[in-house]
Amino acid sequence: MTAPALVITFLGTGSGVPTLDRNLACVAVQRQGELFLFDCGEAAQIQYRRAGLGFGPLRAIFISHLHGVHITGLMGLLMSLQMADRREPLDLYGPPGLRAYVRENQRLLRTGFRYELRFREVEEAATLYETEQVSIRCRPVEHRVFCLGFRLEETPRPGRFSLERAAELSIPSGPLYGALQRGERVTLADGRVITPEEVLGPARPGVSMAYVTDTRPCAAAVELARGVDALIHEATFGKDLAADAAKKSHCTTTEAAEIARLAGARKLLLTHISPRYGDLGALAREARAIFPETWVAHDLYRYEIFHREAEEPLHAEG
Amino acid sequence: MTAPALVITFLGTGSGVPTLDRNLACVAVQRQGELFLFDCGEAAQIQYRRAGLGFGPLRAIFISHLHGVHITGLMGLLMSLQMADRREPLDLYGPPGLRAYVRENQRLLRTGFRYELRFREVEEAATLYETEQVSIRCRPVEHRVFCLGFRLEETPRPGRFSLERAAELSIPSGPLYGALQRGERVTLADGRVITPEEVLGPARPGVSMAYVTDTRPCAAAVELARGVDALIHEATFGKDLAADAAKKSHCTTTEAAEIARLAGARKLLLTHISPRYGDLGALAREARAIFPETWVAHDLYRYEIFHREAEEPLHAEG
Repeated sequence: MTAPALVITFLGTGSGVPTLDRNLACVAVQRQGELFLFDCGEAAQIQYRRAGLGFGPLRAIFISHLHGVHITGLMGLLMSLQMADRREPLDLYGPPGLRAYVRENQRLLRTGFRYELRFREVEEAATLYETEQVSIRCRPVEHRVFCLGFRLEETPRPGRFSLERAAELSIPSGPLYGALQRGERVTLADGRVITPEEVLGPARPGVSMAYVTDTRPCAAAVELARGVDALIHEATFGKDLAADAAKKSHCTTTEAAEIARLAGARKLLLTHISPRYGDLGALAREARAIFPETWVAHDLYRYEIFHREAEEPLHAEG
Repeated sequence: MTAPALVITFLGTGSGVPTLDRNLACVAVQRQGELFLFDCGEAAQIQYRRAGLGFGPLRAIFISHLHGVHITGLMGLLMSLQMADRREPLDLYGPPGLRAYVRENQRLLRTGFRYELRFREVEEAATLYETEQVSIRCRPVEHRVFCLGFRLEETPRPGRFSLERAAELSIPSGPLYGALQRGERVTLADGRVITPEEVLGPARPGVSMAYVTDTRPCAAAVELARGVDALIHEATFGKDLAADAAKKSHCTTTEAAEIARLAGARKLLLTHISPRYGDLGALAREARAIFPETWVAHDLYRYEIFHREAEEPLHAEG
């Protein structure tokens, strides 16, 4: 069976205060042996263990905003990494104030780390993380305080190598195959030059996801979520509490669904649910009336995204 | 059935890092409708809910020292009290730096509280809390950083009212009984003055408990624990790791047991257990070789202390 391209694990799906069912905001995303954490509410490190995730692959932490419930688990996690004798640097991305939050708490608690913390505070749309295979970008969304939404996106993968076509071209199997697969042109013993395009199928799409919380419905959310395989979006309130959502700069189920629809997302995963809701099914039904491919996440809910062989365009509106 | 005088609930019994079995340091003590919290490690508020404890009775929080694992749950709890619309003041007791920790975090997280936080930072032995019925005192113990141990002690309760003796003295039943029970002297219609001693039995002992973590074995621990009904004491390590305990300013099982024995405690409840230990039975056996009345606490372990009718002296040594 094919391995998933991305594994999303919801470590906390609550908002405001933790409940016995829902911890505070935190989502882990695993990709190719690396792990990215989005937000870090209290007890994130406990949920992290509960989900069976190791500390080794943790590569970077992305903080949306500095409201306590999105960050009060950060110091505990950083201290536990120290106890686990981490030596690799850890990247921390977030809004201005993130570095001061960590450094001040280190000072107050007289806590040092042997591993390097590399901070990057951003005030506008930016590319935060980029390799040949994947990028993570952010954009400000619309909350009561400065808040960032995030998008992780793989670059398109090379097309499949055609053994049939290689045989037709009499390319000897071996290192030349590998070079062509990597996108290099090669020269055969008989002097012919073969380009990758001659033996590779069309480029195959990468996968993508967005993490958008806390926010009012906004254009930035739609941009972040454009065509993603999975949009993780806050739905603090049900549709009956639209006035509260507006007042507190949050979204309802139906507002989140509308963002997913406008963005042409493939799947909507709702999180950051108010503690007042016990019946998540009702929330899901509200959203599905607008965007059928909606799930309401629960703590330790695991969602896997697989590579598609070819682009299957969705008809995004807006 | 008689209600317990004190109910101790262990919300976290781990040390260093949380595990799936053990959260970080936090103990709740309920007495007469009031709740006192000792230490406040990460996820304390979640365990607090899990134990079914309401926020209403929370009267004061006592912080032993400012190592992260004893305090990283404090901001989350304070924020949840704000969300719960608390209006009553909350007392916070602990070492110097406690106020700065909370106020700096409020500033960094831009979090205000509508209820009053009343800080008292102490640098030496002191009485922190005192009513007619109960006092809570602290003493510095011996850790790598300044650290306080705590002792809660009820004042002796009045003796039992003797209806027989009252009848012999021809005291009319009614308000005079109440006055005598409260320790007041009363004058009868015939001019006789009756003192409480004439109708009350001997004063009955109050209950007491001590909370001592983190520390090396020290005289202050013995003083705090003198004759208590329950000594909650750290035992970070088993007896085989005495050198680690000494190096890190902690105690082993047997060192904690020796403190309980010297103090003449009635019961020893071990907590702050290193994550390396899965077999708590083995730790308990080590301690019981020295102090038979030992239990190793686990998360959500509840221990009830009942009033005794009369003093039953134990033979404390040391």
